[in-house]
Amino acid sequence: MKHPPVYYGDYLALDTILNSQKLKSKEYGEEAHDETLFIIIHQAYELWFKQIIHELNSVYALFNTKRVKPTDLGVVNHRLNRITQIQKILVDQLSIIETMTPLDFMDFRDYLVPASGFQSIQFRIVELRLGLRQEYRLGIDKKFFNSRLKKSDQVFLEKMEEEPTFLELVDAWLSRMPFGKTEDFDFWTEYEASVSKMLDSDQEIIESNETLHPKEKEMELKMLEATRENFNCLFDAKKYAKLKEQGLVRLSREAKLAAIFIQLYKNEPIFQAPGLLLDSLLDIDEQFSTWRYRHAIMVHRILGTKIGTGGSSGHEYLKRSTENNRVFLDFFNLATFLIPKPYIPTLPEKIKAELGFIHED
Amino acid sequence: MKHPPVYYGDYLALDTILNSQKLKSKEYGEEAHDETLFIIIHQAYELWFKQIIHELNSVYALFNTKRVKPTDLGVVNHRLNRITQIQKILVDQLSIIETMTPLDFMDFRDYLVPASGFQSIQFRIVELRLGLRQEYRLGIDKKFFNSRLKKSDQVFLEKMEEEPTFLELVDAWLSRMPFGKTEDFDFWTEYEASVSKMLDSDQEIIESNETLHPKEKEMELKMLEATRENFNCLFDAKKYAKLKEQGLVRLSREAKLAAIFIQLYKNEPIFQAPGLLLDSLLDIDEQFSTWRYRHAIMVHRILGTKIGTGGSSGHEYLKRSTENNRVFLDFFNLATFLIPKPYIPTLPEKIKAELGFIHED
Amino acid sequence: MKHPPVYYGDYLALDTILNSQKLKSKEYGEEAHDETLFIIIHQAYELWFKQIIHELNSVYALFNTKRVKPTDLGVVNHRLNRITQIQKILVDQLSIIETMTPLDFMDFRDYLVPASGFQSIQFRIVELRLGLRQEYRLGIDKKFFNSRLKKSDQVFLEKMEEEPTFLELVDAWLSRMPFGKTEDFDFWTEYEASVSKMLDSDQEIIESNETLHPKEKEMELKMLEATRENFNCLFDAKKYAKLKEQGLVRLSREAKLAAIFIQLYKNEPIFQAPGLLLDSLLDIDEQFSTWRYRHAIMVHRILGTKIGTGGSSGHEYLKRSTENNRVFLDFFNLATFLIPKPYIPTLPEKIKAELGFIHED
Amino acid sequence: MKHPPVYYGDYLALDTILNSQKLKSKEYGEEAHDETLFIIIHQAYELWFKQIIHELNSVYALFNTKRVKPTDLGVVNHRLNRITQIQKILVDQLSIIETMTPLDFMDFRDYLVPASGFQSIQFRIVELRLGLRQEYRLGIDKKFFNSRLKKSDQVFLEKMEEEPTFLELVDAWLSRMPFGKTEDFDFWTEYEASVSKMLDSDQEIIESNETLHPKEKEMELKMLEATRENFNCLFDAKKYAKLKEQGLVRLSREAKLAAIFIQLYKNEPIFQAPGLLLDSLLDIDEQFSTWRYRHAIMVHRILGTKIGTGGSSGHEYLKRSTENNRVFLDFFNLATFLIPKPYIPTLPEKIKAELGFIHED
Repeated sequence: MKHPPVYYGDYLALDTILNSQKLKSKEYGEEAHDETLFIIIHQAYELWFKQIIHELNSVYALFNTKRVKPTDLGVVNHRLNRITQIQKILVDQLSIIETMTPLDFMDFRDYLVPASGFQSIQFRIVELRLGLRQEYRLGIDKKFFNSRLKKSDQVFLEKMEEEPTFLELVDAWLSRMPFGKTEDFDFWTEYEASVSKMLDSDQEIIESNETLHPKEKEMELKMLEATRENFNCLFDAKKYAKLKEQGLVRLSREAKLAAIFIQLYKNEPIFQAPGLLLDSLLDIDEQFSTWRYRHAIMVHRILGTKIGTGGSSGHEYLKRSTENNRVFLDFFNLATFLIPKPYIPTLPEKIKAELGFIHED
Repeated sequence: MKHPPVYYGDYLALDTILNSQKLKSKEYGEEAHDETLFIIIHQAYELWFKQIIHELNSVYALFNTKRVKPTDLGVVNHRLNRITQIQKILVDQLSIIETMTPLDFMDFRDYLVPASGFQSIQFRIVELRLGLRQEYRLGIDKKFFNSRLKKSDQVFLEKMEEEPTFLELVDAWLSRMPFGKTEDFDFWTEYEASVSKMLDSDQEIIESNETLHPKEKEMELKMLEATRENFNCLFDAKKYAKLKEQGLVRLSREAKLAAIFIQLYKNEPIFQAPGLLLDSLLDIDEQFSTWRYRHAIMVHRILGTKIGTGGSSGHEYLKRSTENNRVFLDFFNLATFLIPKPYIPTLPEKIKAELGFIHED
Repeated sequence: MKHPPVYYGDYLALDTILNSQKLKSKEYGEEAHDETLFIIIHQAYELWFKQIIHELNSVYALFNTKRVKPTDLGVVNHRLNRITQIQKILVDQLSIIETMTPLDFMDFRDYLVPASGFQSIQFRIVELRLGLRQEYRLGIDKKFFNSRLKKSDQVFLEKMEEEPTFLELVDAWLSRMPFGKTEDFDFWTEYEASVSKMLDSDQEIIESNETLHPKEKEMELKMLEATRENFNCLFDAKKYAKLKEQGLVRLSREAKLAAIFIQLYKNEPIFQAPGLLLDSLLDIDEQFSTWRYRHAIMVHRILGTKIGTGGSSGHEYLKRSTENNRVFLDFFNLATFLIPKPYIPTLPEKIKAELGFIHED
Repeated sequence: MKHPPVYYGDYLALDTILNSQKLKSKEYGEEAHDETLFIIIHQAYELWFKQIIHELNSVYALFNTKRVKPTDLGVVNHRLNRITQIQKILVDQLSIIETMTPLDFMDFRDYLVPASGFQSIQFRIVELRLGLRQEYRLGIDKKFFNSRLKKSDQVFLEKMEEEPTFLELVDAWLSRMPFGKTEDFDFWTEYEASVSKMLDSDQEIIESNETLHPKEKEMELKMLEATRENFNCLFDAKKYAKLKEQGLVRLSREAKLAAIFIQLYKNEPIFQAPGLLLDSLLDIDEQFSTWRYRHAIMVHRILGTKIGTGGSSGHEYLKRSTENNRVFLDFFNLATFLIPKPYIPTLPEKIKAELGFIHED
């Protein structure tokens, strides 16, 4: 042993950590039994937020480059998966705080005014680092963003707004992805043709279906037309640009096409890691929105329809933000643009060969 | 052993159960690997729905009476808790189906048209038995309710609409609860006075707070007024009746008052079991709405923004129904009407004595 | 607002909490990415241990009396249930640390010598408070107990050994339970008769079963004899005393009988809360032993068959302690002494009446 | 729509599935409320076992070849991960059956004699397919294996014993892995030298540590010697063969070396998928042993120390089999043979280049 011996409690700074629960109820009146839980669970959340930021920053750094190394992708997937494991605990921890009854909360609630979970800087950092820019937030949320934070915290976050988000780095990485084109093969031309063929066949089936009521037939054809238009917005760069302007999509068209390509050929060696990465983005988004939803219910359960300690409008607001604050929605919507396997174009040998390993065993 | 010997597989009818996965993909084309999962997970759901209905019916029967026996309350709480344990599995099982990719689903999806999860009669029975009458459903949902089911299933459900729901039985049980009144003490008069005192004190604090900007002060006073009105709707039978007419509350005023009373004195022996029962209703509601929310996300993940096999408008609809279809919302809102312990009226000895056991150890 | 305004981060001491991760790898060499996780997860565990101790102490205080109040039982059950909710998180959190690979752990492992999880004083407090006295520990465990702790920590724990454990308080509470006897009815005499009748009937069935091979018959009769002897040890105070001397049971005979009585009549109003309490003891024991088991596997996964940083013999030891350190084993074994409902003696009206509420609605 | 319309309930064979709960209690006496739960949870388990077998067989088929295709590895990892997701539900479902009390079980338990969970053929198939050959089972377990099954089931399983297990296919796949050798570089020679250097350095540190008591020093040196011998058994083919003969390892030496190599360089493109596969084997083993452990506790809780319906010696046996029946233990023990990164040999460029993709972006 070349280093001084280490003692468990010292290494973990337990003296400090375990003495950082200062009850307001004790300071101003009678100790409220449940305030200890209230403090400890929030501290546990903040510890995990720190860990998520630690992982996120490391992954961010590996992507903040003109070329993401294939070996790094293994590391990135490992760490994104760790984030998801932590998120599951964040969700499940809500069951602990739900053992606090409304009456027990009222024993100390008034002492906490106007503190609010909105003031968790680390949670804000996670959201923003992932991709939730201030401009995407709900109006009321933006207002809190500006007014309820310490000046230094505000400045910190505003500065961070100037940096690219992880979503934007992923977008850039996807956009750089090559493949799909040789002199005599253009994947997206083929794909568009396949989509047309598929939709034409669907249309024919509907039109020739004599068991359908005319009104139903009309409706089904209308839906088919909508699907067709949907695909057109993907294939036509100008239409896509318009959607982006309107804020209906956030991902660039190049990135979206690359992501679809990866999904279609995800078992090719070179796409296995990127495929897992896309799955991780879905997992992270799903876990955060599950957390938001359950958090809103928990607040509803403990506060009813009262206003939160920070003056926030409570569970109604929380429920609305659950859907609004999703970061990787574009990746969920990818499924819309996938087509059944028999319709997927076969890649020319030349391209297929490029997707494999050097070594052939 | 007085009975013929039992063999595991025979007892569980495994020959039947394990041969009930008939793949449409195999019938009409190439076997789709994931169709087995698709069938099995739905069958697992349906088995659990059967179990929930079994528990729910037994609990329902114990409440479908003019007088719920105190010994039965123990049984009821035990079984409601079992329902919640099952619901947790229903939620977590979604992680299994989420391992099915959009492309793998497309291998057999078209064969299933127009079948849809809406056609799960057992799920409908659970919803309706609990309290989700057809009139409370979203418009589109009602339409499916009427058109997508087999005639016999429709008839069955419509007949069930004629019976009281569990929510209504709970309402009746709560409404019968006595207590709170002696010749010289009326609990609700006292409670109303306490609420007034509390709100008056809050108002004074706001008005005398010189650090508040006049606009903020105005807003806070407005919110206080809203809270006061909220309480008035509880205390004033006519106002409450109006809310009920408008569909803003479903619970009767008597039941609501009893539920509040139980929450305020939930550690009194006679209220411990009813208190746990109210908690169970919250748990059941929370688990179902979590299931609905995560189910909507899962659908989004696998289908994107496509239309479901049954023609349903997919994840958007599912998300809307998540909040709409909550059955025990009134019990969540109870928290709104609780007040801090120092304000809660002390019960006269005469009433308090009545809440205990015969035996004193 | 009568108190100075509260800011989220200050209230939670985040400045302190989030700056208490001092990496040894950074101090002595290159920062190891996963050391942050290693520290944070241990800190999260310690925060939750503090919370468990907070709940446990409050419950302990309510039981450290000659008469546990019926209203307090509601509080106790609520808090024991909260402990179980926390324990579930303790178990599930292991999935997070399992994302650390053996190689990543080796990046900083040597710096931590000879620190060890054995040195978690809070975990020791939880174990001891519940009922795991030093004398019950495995030999190797006792040795660590004495040698690897700071002097002050040792002294603290040794002093705590002088206080009764929660198990002992529960034993005393159960032992005080009356019931079961009137002038002309003695429950345990009746119960013993019922058991005899049941076993005699079983014996007759075996003896008259002509399909059994003589050797099988002999074995079944032997097992029946063992069961009979088992019951005798319960009914015969002297035999029971001997088991206790030998350390085969820890609960007093009076407590055990009372616990059986409660289980038999658990839906009687006066037994509903005690019944839930007994269930909670099973839950707590089960959660801790699940944690120990999964913890042993996690250690195996990350360390293989290496020795732990504190010199402990690693996962093999951990697995052995999983079963040894169970505190409420006597309550698991209760099931052995229950008999089918038709055999359970009917209580005389006089006793039955005593188990109810004063109020009859 | 080219196919006849599908109805949800027909597709899922709900008429059959939901009418396959035949209660013995109802047949022979009074309906026992909890027998429905008992049947349904076992049926749910069996449905999931069928799904696990479906995935396992597909993975098995892809490995039952002289050359596993790189694209297939993506599929295999996906499906092994699905198995783990299902296993988590198998574990969590135990919480549902734990809501059945010992008394409630006794309402129908006697009717089930001598059926037993040991008779679950599907569970046997999963165990055996993975790698748990009959010879590895505990004695008592083998006996049940032979005597408690229907003749046809016995024959089926005995025939399956003749096929290779998945563990053996994985062994063969790993054993075929090339790499590690060029004309002028032999990885395992280098690795052995690194291990020596590391252990020599450790030895020096211990010997020169003047703070150690002579007895402690002696013990530490003894442990070091044990570690050295441990590594020797890996490096020396003869010694390894002996361990294998004694049944202390099951994996071939070639496979073990390849698995270590993969772990050391798991971020190299060609090893990312194999690395994930090895992780999955750990996950599967961990989930099954967690299930076995929790299952044993559940049995203890409901039966106490009674004998199971099939005459099995109950929870004691179950606990012993928890550790004995682990299939992928060799992969857990891999961690023993990993060394800190600074000691890991640097691969020559020539080898490193072979581990990447054809395409360089």
